[in-house]
Amino acid sequence: DRPLVIADRTFSSRLMTGTGKYRNVEEMQQSVVASGCQIVTVAVRRVQTKAPGHENLAEALDWTKLWMLPNTAGCQTAEEAIRVARLGREMAKVLGQEDNNFVKLEVIPDPKYLLPDPIGTLQAAEQLVKEGFAVLPYINADPMLAKRLEEVGCVTVMPLASPIGSGQGLKTTANIQIIIENAGVPVVVDAGIGTPSEAAQAMELGADALLINTAIAQAKNPPAMARGMKLATEAGRLAYLAGRIPIKDYAIASSPLSGTVTS
Amino acid sequence: DRPLVIADRTFSSRLMTGTGKYRNVEEMQQSVVASGCQIVTVAVRRVQTKAPGHENLAEALDWTKLWMLPNTAGCQTAEEAIRVARLGREMAKVLGQEDNNFVKLEVIPDPKYLLPDPIGTLQAAEQLVKEGFAVLPYINADPMLAKRLEEVGCVTVMPLASPIGSGQGLKTTANIQIIIENAGVPVVVDAGIGTPSEAAQAMELGADALLINTAIAQAKNPPAMARGMKLATEAGRLAYLAGRIPIKDYAIASSPLSGTVTS
Amino acid sequence: DRPLVIADRTFSSRLMTGTGKYRNVEEMQQSVVASGCQIVTVAVRRVQTKAPGHENLAEALDWTKLWMLPNTAGCQTAEEAIRVARLGREMAKVLGQEDNNFVKLEVIPDPKYLLPDPIGTLQAAEQLVKEGFAVLPYINADPMLAKRLEEVGCVTVMPLASPIGSGQGLKTTANIQIIIENAGVPVVVDAGIGTPSEAAQAMELGADALLINTAIAQAKNPPAMARGMKLATEAGRLAYLAGRIPIKDYAIASSPLSGTVTS
Amino acid sequence: DRPLVIADRTFSSRLMTGTGKYRNVEEMQQSVVASGCQIVTVAVRRVQTKAPGHENLAEALDWTKLWMLPNTAGCQTAEEAIRVARLGREMAKVLGQEDNNFVKLEVIPDPKYLLPDPIGTLQAAEQLVKEGFAVLPYINADPMLAKRLEEVGCVTVMPLASPIGSGQGLKTTANIQIIIENAGVPVVVDAGIGTPSEAAQAMELGADALLINTAIAQAKNPPAMARGMKLATEAGRLAYLAGRIPIKDYAIASSPLSGTVTS
Repeated sequence: DRPLVIADRTFSSRLMTGTGKYRNVEEMQQSVVASGCQIVTVAVRRVQTKAPGHENLAEALDWTKLWMLPNTAGCQTAEEAIRVARLGREMAKVLGQEDNNFVKLEVIPDPKYLLPDPIGTLQAAEQLVKEGFAVLPYINADPMLAKRLEEVGCVTVMPLASPIGSGQGLKTTANIQIIIENAGVPVVVDAGIGTPSEAAQAMELGADALLINTAIAQAKNPPAMARGMKLATEAGRLAYLAGRIPIKDYAIASSPLSGTVTS
Repeated sequence: DRPLVIADRTFSSRLMTGTGKYRNVEEMQQSVVASGCQIVTVAVRRVQTKAPGHENLAEALDWTKLWMLPNTAGCQTAEEAIRVARLGREMAKVLGQEDNNFVKLEVIPDPKYLLPDPIGTLQAAEQLVKEGFAVLPYINADPMLAKRLEEVGCVTVMPLASPIGSGQGLKTTANIQIIIENAGVPVVVDAGIGTPSEAAQAMELGADALLINTAIAQAKNPPAMARGMKLATEAGRLAYLAGRIPIKDYAIASSPLSGTVTS
Repeated sequence: DRPLVIADRTFSSRLMTGTGKYRNVEEMQQSVVASGCQIVTVAVRRVQTKAPGHENLAEALDWTKLWMLPNTAGCQTAEEAIRVARLGREMAKVLGQEDNNFVKLEVIPDPKYLLPDPIGTLQAAEQLVKEGFAVLPYINADPMLAKRLEEVGCVTVMPLASPIGSGQGLKTTANIQIIIENAGVPVVVDAGIGTPSEAAQAMELGADALLINTAIAQAKNPPAMARGMKLATEAGRLAYLAGRIPIKDYAIASSPLSGTVTS
Repeated sequence: DRPLVIADRTFSSRLMTGTGKYRNVEEMQQSVVASGCQIVTVAVRRVQTKAPGHENLAEALDWTKLWMLPNTAGCQTAEEAIRVARLGREMAKVLGQEDNNFVKLEVIPDPKYLLPDPIGTLQAAEQLVKEGFAVLPYINADPMLAKRLEEVGCVTVMPLASPIGSGQGLKTTANIQIIIENAGVPVVVDAGIGTPSEAAQAMELGADALLINTAIAQAKNPPAMARGMKLATEAGRLAYLAGRIPIKDYAIASSPLSGTVTS
């Protein structure tokens, strides 16, 4: 298998996680390790506002091994998101990641479903690309929008499986399949995955990577679930490469028999 | 996690495989190793008739490490199955497993879907239990039949996910859930699983173990798929124990924000 | 379309309903009419025990237009069911249906899911057929059991979509499809249907008829739901006969265009 | 039930159809009648180019009873769509519908999946609303885009169930549910419906109307399928209003019994 490459950076893990919604810092630390992830997304505004669990992020995780993906959660407009993305770049520098220009772009005016605004996202993406960011936009699973974002220079597209934190699993499979089929950049399925089987399913479709946060952070046992998600991501990738059997209407005997028993 | 216990025998792996339908012996050997399985099912009639890939089974696999599960594939009636089960016990002895009384009971009159006969299966199970066998019956996902089989002394029930070799995945989820909820013996989901995501899904439901053969043997790359199935089985089990998040109608922000950006 | 024929009796409606679980007799009467049904199932034991809504069944419905289908609900063993079936035959005679030998056979030892016992059902069916009954057995969606019941002389098979009254819809689709494909008698999908779309779906699979009770009786507006079920049953049957379009991976333009606009 | 109102015009039928893809004019005429529809969409460019079946549209259908919905199929950009919409308005006038300003807006750059461009659609919608059109935009099932289109003055939103003509059914259920929940204008599910059960399902979700073309035109028997779609649309609407039963994990007896049989 080739490794995952985003904006010329190579990653061996195909599972990304986050730092939000954990019950305490210890569970977060253990889960990040158990997940085997190399990319950790951090809400810039949570750090800025010293939200619980984010006061001490520089010390909490080993940023010499983890690549930070600042995100613009909490931004309702393109303008806000652009401003917060710039703050995120500063944040990464403070952590010692001088060349980190990554930003997970979220433009979310909707407080109930946290669904992203396609128009504002495209506008912000265009501007941030111009400013030299490696933009990873969070979007509804719209293949035409994904194509537009790729055309303006985004380095991945991140279609949602279902609303953030809902744990509903893959509710947008048909559109995600089309996105994968047409994408020239990595497709990262983000939001809504609730279980390892759903993680594996997304990878079997051909997704390049996953971002899973709530399903780990809010599980009864987050580090165990983190490990489950790690194994499932690998399992789904293996299956994608190994070539699954075709689905058949009828049965095919595991043990075809031509002779008869002689006893 | 407690290990899997069947008829007082303990197993650390929760994935069982088989020996049929491989393109060659090497792929079979590599896949059995890659799957990490401890129980391998073998069609007694295939061995009796020296079917391809079964001429040399004693040498092909390391039976000091693997537990053989003889199966009665190819039997259409209770009588046939009983006779073949006895042959299977002899076969296990020849391999050095003196105390192996396991038999995977298949009574399958239907050549197209290979669906098991509930009546013949129950009759054969009763007789084989009397003869001291540890009976693992292959059944359609009928909770009432599962209960009956448990009552007559079967050591597991093995409901099918979908027709053997079809790769259709979990098509009997609702009934399998009821079987799991009511079972006092291990529930092994058998037949129909096509991908790691489906393997994980069955384990997340609370299945105690899986038996997967065709999806591995007929994959383009069987050893890679075997490893995928291994990881997915472990992932699903981890998730079952770790406690998944509830499914919600609305989104829950990964990064709830109360403050505002000050820049 | 050919009409539905069960035991040499012809019916133009393919939707059967019941009399249980209505909030009052008026809603039941209006719903039976709105459903357009010709077959109404009645729990013999409810009539015997004068359960609410069943004190006056002879007057409540017009039995010169409706064919009564006595059912053995509440019977846990074959013996009980046989006894209650005989009572049902008497009941039909009292209503003036001298030649009515129909019985809906239910053998249900399980109080939680109300799933039928395959063994007891087959035993009772054999006996009742010998006694001249036209037996319509309620079963889990097991194709092998369905075949057995047909072989002993049952006039239909009635596989369940999901547990009685659960409104879960078609949870046994794959097995019901196999039953339909192999059946030489009408297949009546019974139990679990919650909405008209599910009713239509079962008919599109090729089911010959449906039995729907709870979804109508417990709807907020039973007569309106009864009419919805009637229309959906007809719609599904029409679609089955009309031949649906194939499912395609890609789009096919509704309005293929070869020229260009000249304006 | 209240009737469907779009741009102050009232319709009693909730099923819209089209004129494309029929094998001949007779099947089209019979199907339009059998569907009971009042709104028929017509591809302006097909009429302009005198495509097969569109040479004589003025005579083929009774435009005193049917309301024409000109559509911009075949337009890849906002500019094209605006131009074709204006032609459509002229076309309606020629047919005697002087006050018909309706346009079904399609901006579709993608030739394979025929998925609409969210950005171009919004731009064209804004312009057409300014020019006095009643705009019914065809969109991917993106709730944020739907809200934007409503805000600029569109009179409905028309989210797709799955790609046009694919017959895949409802693949975007979760997003369509959110659109319905938030919409202040009628939601018309358009494209991808293949069977009456899927039509009923969309209506049960609370859709205000459906547009179905390929599933009727390309069925083996189009008029029969048209009637099936009509009945299913009505059935789904009835169920939506009648209030379905809740879905339960366990069974609820249709015939609860407290007494015992006395015989």
